[in-house]
Amino acid sequence: MGRWEADASGRLREAALQLYVERGFEQTTVAEIAKRAGLTARTFFRYFADKREVLFAGSADLQHNLVGALEVAPEAASPMQAVAAALDAAAESLGQRHEHSRQRHSVIMANAELRERELTKMASLSAALADGLRRRGVPEPDASLAAETGIVVLRVAFGRWISEPHPAGLAQVMRETLDSLQDVTAAR
Amino acid sequence: MGRWEADASGRLREAALQLYVERGFEQTTVAEIAKRAGLTARTFFRYFADKREVLFAGSADLQHNLVGALEVAPEAASPMQAVAAALDAAAESLGQRHEHSRQRHSVIMANAELRERELTKMASLSAALADGLRRRGVPEPDASLAAETGIVVLRVAFGRWISEPHPAGLAQVMRETLDSLQDVTAAR
Repeated sequence: MGRWEADASGRLREAALQLYVERGFEQTTVAEIAKRAGLTARTFFRYFADKREVLFAGSADLQHNLVGALEVAPEAASPMQAVAAALDAAAESLGQRHEHSRQRHSVIMANAELRERELTKMASLSAALADGLRRRGVPEPDASLAAETGIVVLRVAFGRWISEPHPAGLAQVMRETLDSLQDVTAAR
Repeated sequence: MGRWEADASGRLREAALQLYVERGFEQTTVAEIAKRAGLTARTFFRYFADKREVLFAGSADLQHNLVGALEVAPEAASPMQAVAAALDAAAESLGQRHEHSRQRHSVIMANAELRERELTKMASLSAALADGLRRRGVPEPDASLAAETGIVVLRVAFGRWISEPHPAGLAQVMRETLDSLQDVTAAR
């Protein structure tokens, strides 16, 4: 992708989020997003299928980074150690823009269709992590359990991180949440 | 609800599942479901909003049973012990009809809209469990982590149970899966 094109995609994503925050997701049209970005609706549709997908454009990169981190984790790593490495990579992907993330999350939570899309995205991430663990030789049900609890940690940690005005880095919040998970599940 | 009415609802649910298995969810109409059950479409709509909801009619009962089990768990129970009691109640609700459960699950997995509805239902269950734990005085993030990992165990155990032709009882599969979760999360 050329530099100008990457910029067009980024401008459309920023413009969409601004408008969703200002007017609400339902009230915003693709034409308005394109206009705010100084582009045409035709250009919008070169990058995104619809006004919903513009909010989820980072999903494929996130999944790629998570699965990639699993793959390079040391062979001797336990399933949860490999998942912890994937969560560090997720924090790297997700933890850069706090205010942007907070706004995006509040737009998603305000709309049932977007919440469903977010749940579907999390289910895909979880399935991809479980696949990656099975490729590492982790048997079932351990692969699914480690992957799904990893995604639980990601979601809970992300929720805590965006709800605090001046949080620690997301990677640190993830590690603390993983420690809490271990304490909670051990106390039986 | 009178005896005849309970029977009408049950007959509609059975008829719907039969038709979804035979013809596929998309190809089945409400009129056909009502006819198979020996009832009218008008009666169908007294019980269910649409042909999707007929598959999820048990969700409210399931949630009620899970949350009720949390409430009567001993005061001294740890969060995961309380969640384990809720999972026993879930096994009681879900574990009665193996072939029916297997068929329902395969119908849901074959349709994107139904999979999304199932994810939403699981997210509601998880939120209700976390609420119940907070009412027991469990702080965050422990309440969310225990509730969400509990739902992970429920889903993984249920998936294992329906995929085996002659499985052990669902309650036993749940307990084994909870043990596996504890082993997996401890190995860090």
